[in-house]
Amino acid sequence: MSSEDMHRFGADQLHEQIVAVLRAWGMPGEPAAATATVMVETDLSGVDSHGVSMLMMYEKLRSEDRLKLDAVPRVVRDAPAFAVVDAGAGLGHPAGLHALELAIGKAAVCGIGAVAVGNSHHLGALGHYVRSAAQRGLVALMTTTTRTPVVAALGGTTPILGTNPIAFAAPRAGGGELVVDMSTSVVAMNKVKAYALSGRDLPVGWVSDRSGDPVTDAALAYSLLTTHAATLTPLGGSSSETGGHKGFGLSLMVNVLSAAFSGGALPFDDADSDNLGHFVLVIDPTRVAEGGETARYVDDLVRLLVRDEPHVILPGGPEAAARAARGRDGIPIPENLLEQLRGICGRAGTEMILTPLA
Amino acid sequence: MSSEDMHRFGADQLHEQIVAVLRAWGMPGEPAAATATVMVETDLSGVDSHGVSMLMMYEKLRSEDRLKLDAVPRVVRDAPAFAVVDAGAGLGHPAGLHALELAIGKAAVCGIGAVAVGNSHHLGALGHYVRSAAQRGLVALMTTTTRTPVVAALGGTTPILGTNPIAFAAPRAGGGELVVDMSTSVVAMNKVKAYALSGRDLPVGWVSDRSGDPVTDAALAYSLLTTHAATLTPLGGSSSETGGHKGFGLSLMVNVLSAAFSGGALPFDDADSDNLGHFVLVIDPTRVAEGGETARYVDDLVRLLVRDEPHVILPGGPEAAARAARGRDGIPIPENLLEQLRGICGRAGTEMILTPLA
Repeated sequence: MSSEDMHRFGADQLHEQIVAVLRAWGMPGEPAAATATVMVETDLSGVDSHGVSMLMMYEKLRSEDRLKLDAVPRVVRDAPAFAVVDAGAGLGHPAGLHALELAIGKAAVCGIGAVAVGNSHHLGALGHYVRSAAQRGLVALMTTTTRTPVVAALGGTTPILGTNPIAFAAPRAGGGELVVDMSTSVVAMNKVKAYALSGRDLPVGWVSDRSGDPVTDAALAYSLLTTHAATLTPLGGSSSETGGHKGFGLSLMVNVLSAAFSGGALPFDDADSDNLGHFVLVIDPTRVAEGGETARYVDDLVRLLVRDEPHVILPGGPEAAARAARGRDGIPIPENLLEQLRGICGRAGTEMILTPLA
Repeated sequence: MSSEDMHRFGADQLHEQIVAVLRAWGMPGEPAAATATVMVETDLSGVDSHGVSMLMMYEKLRSEDRLKLDAVPRVVRDAPAFAVVDAGAGLGHPAGLHALELAIGKAAVCGIGAVAVGNSHHLGALGHYVRSAAQRGLVALMTTTTRTPVVAALGGTTPILGTNPIAFAAPRAGGGELVVDMSTSVVAMNKVKAYALSGRDLPVGWVSDRSGDPVTDAALAYSLLTTHAATLTPLGGSSSETGGHKGFGLSLMVNVLSAAFSGGALPFDDADSDNLGHFVLVIDPTRVAEGGETARYVDDLVRLLVRDEPHVILPGGPEAAARAARGRDGIPIPENLLEQLRGICGRAGTEMILTPLA
């Protein structure tokens, strides 16, 4: 079934459905609504792997008592421009939003503010958080560790590092934002999964087995990755000649920023929670530059990049296009995901309210 | 002449020589000594392209009256954890060091501190700055814009962005630092130059002409790059399939951080100075984490990466090896560079004191 054949659903109804499930799982109303907003925005932006489709993973973590839906994020260290938050083994979304607001408040006073979050779980797509800051005129950078060790050190074959993403956003004068949101591996895990679902072979250079040989069967590759029996190449490829040491270095940087201040897990820690770590950095340009200068610079730079260049795709461009299309036509959900959502609703004892748009 | 045949020089003597030239050019004693230290440390670390070999470029910029050797960096905006510095069209080294000290002071009070520098010039290798912060127990991140537009937007053919490097360092418990220092292009310009000097062909995928066709003749590629007639591929390659959009996004992030707060130049600005912008960020772990926790995390992570992996090259590893070898055996300087340095000394009216180690 291609995405054109899928049923489509309104963002508001999807929000309501997610809130109902989270509340049935014991999450209070306010964080449930905030979490659902992040998830729906992620689906609206076309990042299907990080939106409502994550509910199955959350259900599994909850059933294992690793994920505490009623956790309240709590500041455990506080300096004027930096705080550390303990997410209490809860979902990453409310913790990430809490950290973002804290960092914004600190940046308003100090020019810059940062918050490291520990003892957390999956928080969706980082792009949502930094974009929301840029919509408020702020510059934001965010990183997180991820759950499954898949990337090896350059020259090694043991999967140690996650796909460790980094996101950055800045406001553009005249409206809109520059948004960068990327894993530091050559592709994110969901891309491998998407190839598997559509039966396409992976390009050589994405996934290698533990002997270093390429794995191009996407379904096999995904299965090997999730069981630590294969590695995902860092951004830049598997050799220094193509810059693989740079992707490896970026992944280390993300890992340190995200977890080294907040007591986040090392890879393969056998903790009670996933203990993911996040890092949020916010700069308030009104405190450090002439009024509007920063947003004007960003806009001028972007205009320079696309001038006379019809084929340029700006970072964040595909997501903005998806938001326009899905905001108008609804969010496509494949039948197998709908079926899984029905199961979740049933087990949670809440009604399945999703009905396709006409 | 291979590097084994080159004459080698002691670091202290090289430092003295650089100070003499900078002072003859009108730079006061303290910034001259500090600049020479950065340059010699860069040569010691094996990053030959960014050390003493840059004196020719500085001489040229000075002769064009673009570079002001007697400039004094000056804080023009100041918030508790963020400042903006005007480098006064001076060399980037004293401005970068000034910014680093400012950021360190702010981090000691606020947990984090950042400084953006504008109206600056080349500042050497970023790795030196962040490593020196990590040696003081701090975590540091640094970015800069660069002089020559060489990288196009993904899908475009006009060179707009510089090689826009990013560097990151963190202390390791038990001594040593994790240091990442990388351009956000597939290779730095100096790598293309090095291939040209040694007569090797470039790998396909590094440089393309304005039609998008690969240029593998290294001398031709370097010449085309310096005249905006070719482009250097972003980290990740020239297609989204290999992650080229990620290197492009990182380059944009570096450009915005480095220049958007400090009034740095847009590419192709025809300003009086190069007007490069730098960005320095420092986190003081003692303000935000349990004592020693951050350095312990970094060390544990690095140990995990190399455990049972004999072939792993850690970021910063080659530079550390070069520092050990060159600290012992001296810094190799090829004859043609020595000849150029003789010319510089002659024109500056200062003695050439460099004498090879026995």
